[in-house]
Amino acid sequence: MKTIDVCLSPDLMHLYNVQNHTVVVVDILRATSCMTTAFAHGIATIAPFAQLQDCLAMKEKGYFTAGERDGKKVDGFDLGNSPFEYQNPALKGKNIAFTTTNGTQAIVKSLGAKEIVIGSFLNLSAVATHVRELPYDILVVCAGWKGKVNLEDTLFAGAVVEKLKNETELACDAPLAAQHLYNQAKNDMVAFLSTSSHVKRLGKLGIHKDIEFCLTPDQYDVVPRLVDNVLTVSR
Amino acid sequence: MKTIDVCLSPDLMHLYNVQNHTVVVVDILRATSCMTTAFAHGIATIAPFAQLQDCLAMKEKGYFTAGERDGKKVDGFDLGNSPFEYQNPALKGKNIAFTTTNGTQAIVKSLGAKEIVIGSFLNLSAVATHVRELPYDILVVCAGWKGKVNLEDTLFAGAVVEKLKNETELACDAPLAAQHLYNQAKNDMVAFLSTSSHVKRLGKLGIHKDIEFCLTPDQYDVVPRLVDNVLTVSR
Repeated sequence: MKTIDVCLSPDLMHLYNVQNHTVVVVDILRATSCMTTAFAHGIATIAPFAQLQDCLAMKEKGYFTAGERDGKKVDGFDLGNSPFEYQNPALKGKNIAFTTTNGTQAIVKSLGAKEIVIGSFLNLSAVATHVRELPYDILVVCAGWKGKVNLEDTLFAGAVVEKLKNETELACDAPLAAQHLYNQAKNDMVAFLSTSSHVKRLGKLGIHKDIEFCLTPDQYDVVPRLVDNVLTVSR
Repeated sequence: MKTIDVCLSPDLMHLYNVQNHTVVVVDILRATSCMTTAFAHGIATIAPFAQLQDCLAMKEKGYFTAGERDGKKVDGFDLGNSPFEYQNPALKGKNIAFTTTNGTQAIVKSLGAKEIVIGSFLNLSAVATHVRELPYDILVVCAGWKGKVNLEDTLFAGAVVEKLKNETELACDAPLAAQHLYNQAKNDMVAFLSTSSHVKRLGKLGIHKDIEFCLTPDQYDVVPRLVDNVLTVSR
């Protein structure tokens, strides 16, 4: 039986072996929710960057640039970190260079995996189906917040564990804790998360609509995959 | 209002500032449960050691030696890691040199705090009262398992958060997640933990009695404190 594991923070990635694993990278608020939305609306590729400057430099190569630091859009970038910006028909067939506080780092630390996919509640069932069909053990990597564990990414990890519970074995306590939290939260995730630190932080930025959208399961059936350091989907 | 925070693994301690904090170190199965039991039964001091050899060398200085690796007593040591061993009247007034897989490391990484105390379910209310009376912010440091998050230490952290919820502010999502898990588990922690990795690991060693005892709240009212690198209690 395949195992399923959860890394609750990129700062714990040294404890996990990504080789022979499918890695699901998650940054619910809001990087991976934006990426999922972008692909569902026809973006061709997304290139992730850890550094702002490297990302911005892609503008010259015809890329749209997307950047967020501390939950806010960065000056000089075309796109911020609201999923609704990525529903724009003008982006169809285009390429995006993307950098975020936590999400990109989680991708970089997952390099070496058999496959790296982008997960969010928006494509939860599609991701579960995809990792189920691959022959590899599964590791969900939570982007967290500056190294710290966050609740929304943990809930998503728990949702994946719950979806695959009859066909995987839990590798340690982190997937079990995530699964318990998800089952406690699933009937009203918005309410469950209302006291979480990131939701409070984003609430101050006035983006309740974003939060509600990012917590809505199964809006899209795309599964963005990292191929040659660029995210893409099979069309 | 004071803040309360939870570090879910010693490998995340670089993200936390211990200065001006009371740190509660917890390793439910079984180091801090043993330490609590030992002090409740009259031990004078416990000196924590990271290295087995350093610990064993204290035998010459008249210390009882207590050592565990991977849940098993170490050859040549007087005591293992079962709390029942520490109820022995022969230990009254004596000193112990103690080393464990995870617990000692959590203490070492907490050095620099205003105060370091030893927490377990066995002395839960006593610890809550103690940290409540001190003027410092509170950080619960979970010993975990070789860097990974474990459920039993997380539940204890959640129990402390729950006890202090009306007089502290949550510093981030980790205390919130721990509190949710504790509230889900509290009516039957033995059952809740029955699928956890460490309980399964220890179950193979045949120590169900130990596990049940370590999950029983408020058996003792001692609060072991680190003073000059040695654990002691006020008598």
